[in-house]
Amino acid sequence: MADGVASYGLVEDAAIAVSSGRIQWIGPHRDLPPDHADWPIIDFADRLITPGLIDPHTHAIFGGNRAVEFEMRLNGATYEEIARAGGGILSTVTATRAASMQDLIQEALPRIDALLAEGVTCIELKSGYGLDQDTELRMLRAAREIAKQRPVRVQTSFLGAHAVPPEFTGRADAYIDTVCIPTLRAAHAEGLVDAVDGFCEGIAFDTTQIARVFDAARDLGLPVKLHAEQLSNLGGARLAASYGALSADHVEYVDAAGVAAMTEAGTTAVLLPGAFYTLRETQVPPIDLFRKAGVPMALATDCNPGSSPLTSLLLAMNMGCTLFGMTPAEALAGVTRNAARALGLADAGSIAPGQRADLAVWDVSHPAELVYRIGFNPLHARIFGGEV
Amino acid sequence: MADGVASYGLVEDAAIAVSSGRIQWIGPHRDLPPDHADWPIIDFADRLITPGLIDPHTHAIFGGNRAVEFEMRLNGATYEEIARAGGGILSTVTATRAASMQDLIQEALPRIDALLAEGVTCIELKSGYGLDQDTELRMLRAAREIAKQRPVRVQTSFLGAHAVPPEFTGRADAYIDTVCIPTLRAAHAEGLVDAVDGFCEGIAFDTTQIARVFDAARDLGLPVKLHAEQLSNLGGARLAASYGALSADHVEYVDAAGVAAMTEAGTTAVLLPGAFYTLRETQVPPIDLFRKAGVPMALATDCNPGSSPLTSLLLAMNMGCTLFGMTPAEALAGVTRNAARALGLADAGSIAPGQRADLAVWDVSHPAELVYRIGFNPLHARIFGGEV
Ligand SMILES: [Zn+2]
Ligand SMILES: [Zn+2]
Repeated sequence: MADGVASYGLVEDAAIAVSSGRIQWIGPHRDLPPDHADWPIIDFADRLITPGLIDPHTHAIFGGNRAVEFEMRLNGATYEEIARAGGGILSTVTATRAASMQDLIQEALPRIDALLAEGVTCIELKSGYGLDQDTELRMLRAAREIAKQRPVRVQTSFLGAHAVPPEFTGRADAYIDTVCIPTLRAAHAEGLVDAVDGFCEGIAFDTTQIARVFDAARDLGLPVKLHAEQLSNLGGARLAASYGALSADHVEYVDAAGVAAMTEAGTTAVLLPGAFYTLRETQVPPIDLFRKAGVPMALATDCNPGSSPLTSLLLAMNMGCTLFGMTPAEALAGVTRNAARALGLADAGSIAPGQRADLAVWDVSHPAELVYRIGFNPLHARIFGGEV
Repeated sequence: MADGVASYGLVEDAAIAVSSGRIQWIGPHRDLPPDHADWPIIDFADRLITPGLIDPHTHAIFGGNRAVEFEMRLNGATYEEIARAGGGILSTVTATRAASMQDLIQEALPRIDALLAEGVTCIELKSGYGLDQDTELRMLRAAREIAKQRPVRVQTSFLGAHAVPPEFTGRADAYIDTVCIPTLRAAHAEGLVDAVDGFCEGIAFDTTQIARVFDAARDLGLPVKLHAEQLSNLGGARLAASYGALSADHVEYVDAAGVAAMTEAGTTAVLLPGAFYTLRETQVPPIDLFRKAGVPMALATDCNPGSSPLTSLLLAMNMGCTLFGMTPAEALAGVTRNAARALGLADAGSIAPGQRADLAVWDVSHPAELVYRIGFNPLHARIFGGEV
């Protein structure tokens, strides 16, 4: 999956030399330089080795779950009835505010473990269900703690601009200025923020509100990304690109101008077919436009309790192909090379000298098998920082 | 999930008394009869216990895989190009004919194991990739052998009428009369057949050809079932019902007359959302008609290498709700009570005295959680014939 390599860039009968948690050399085994020849060997026989998978967009830290709301909806309840019963994103906000940091970690770990079991070695975790300073900080601290409790690299995103909390109904500007931005500064001061995210949509925040959050991010020297053009085209991708965003995410409704801006800025499109599937959407992201414009495409689970209760990145890959028409090679690039790019990581997502030795070993004979199967996990081993 | 019980029929703080592999008693723990009170106890704390899951429609035994064809299609190959490259169902027939019984078992077991890991205790396995006597018998023998190698109940279906093999192109009638029916008789003589299945579709067999196979089944005293109305309405469901079929499967295109015939005959509708998803179909089966007509609905993976490479029954349940609009209670009934019915099993699919003690124990607090999550396996333990 190295940059500039066509399709998978498969190396047959390969050797990978690893030391100090980094890849030192990769190539055909017969070409292994003599100075590596007497290193200890782990023989993975005729298995496939890929970069460790990267899930670049998750909301895997939250309190409660929304199974009852899912059931109410299928039993014919209207959105109003669900809202009156305390459903929707605010039910998750309420449960998350009520949860201790230990609760948040304990509830997130089974989801994280499900991802790790499929060869994931790096995951993004967002805040955004607190919407007050205490809870947003608690979510981000939980994310940092998870990176200590599991062999996985965690990149955090501050998502204070996820929704307007109930105590600010009708006062979104006041929420942005008096809670969201001050909380971002506090979280950054604690070293909790790797990137700043927002939700730009009619039901969330408009571009001028998001721009204020991004200005604050720029002041702090933090990269930005944005939930954009999921349900309508508000110009969020263009806004994100104007800030040199790492990624614009969802982007089902992005137009040609938005795509051009993303190309210009080097912004990755992070596609989230789990939400598309769960919400029964019909507008597919403009894959062909992205291809032609050279916009890198990543794939993620969007793991969250409402629109995408998905904890399988392999299934997100299958959905990217089946629902969006991506090729298997694009799907694999989407959870390796391009997912690393969406997180601003230069040392992950490919198997090349200098990269972290984060790898996945699979019981398959061809990489397309990873994408083709549905609900099957062929992982043989996971290697994190050179440790099996 | 007992018959006639509304929704889940949950029993809080329940006890289940099991001996000799059968359920002797179930009810609230406080009502446990004194003669069971000193039996050894396994305490599953506050977990949910459901009937063991039943997958009533699979083609999990086959040779090869079709990942390359999947990739060719997404890379823009036409069906003709794929066929010329040896793709399609006939590629599976070729690979299956070339496989020994041991090959077939070894290749099927990882798929079976994936199902078992999700609490499946009973699975249907079809022939139908041999289309010659030797290979059809080999597939069915492999199915019987799998039941010995794994703690799972296997129900076999003879599916000689799956496709016209290449050596009979344009001579479907001759295939039915000189290969399919004689092979059915041979398989039955060996005790290999629990039910007889067919594929009634423009690309397979018409109703008169299927009727000849069903007549042979009737002569042998074997129940029938049918792949019907998947891509068009040929009246297959009505035909199946006229033979008192256990089930009509797929049935996206069944009409009111077909539904009425199914009601009359007590035929179960086995819904296969994995194929609907993979083929990007748009015609949803008439769930509301089935509800109103009292047709029991079951759900299955349809695990097969072409149109549904799915090995997760939990995901089939989620798809049944998300794609077809079933309720979570219908989805759970679809893989327990109604799946048992689709297989003609009176002693499986519910937790009631006299039933086999095939159970699944889950780390969830409400059954809707089994259906709501995507790509997550909350199984805590599986109980087969009373053995954990
Ligand atoms: Zn999101
Ligand atoms: Zn089938």
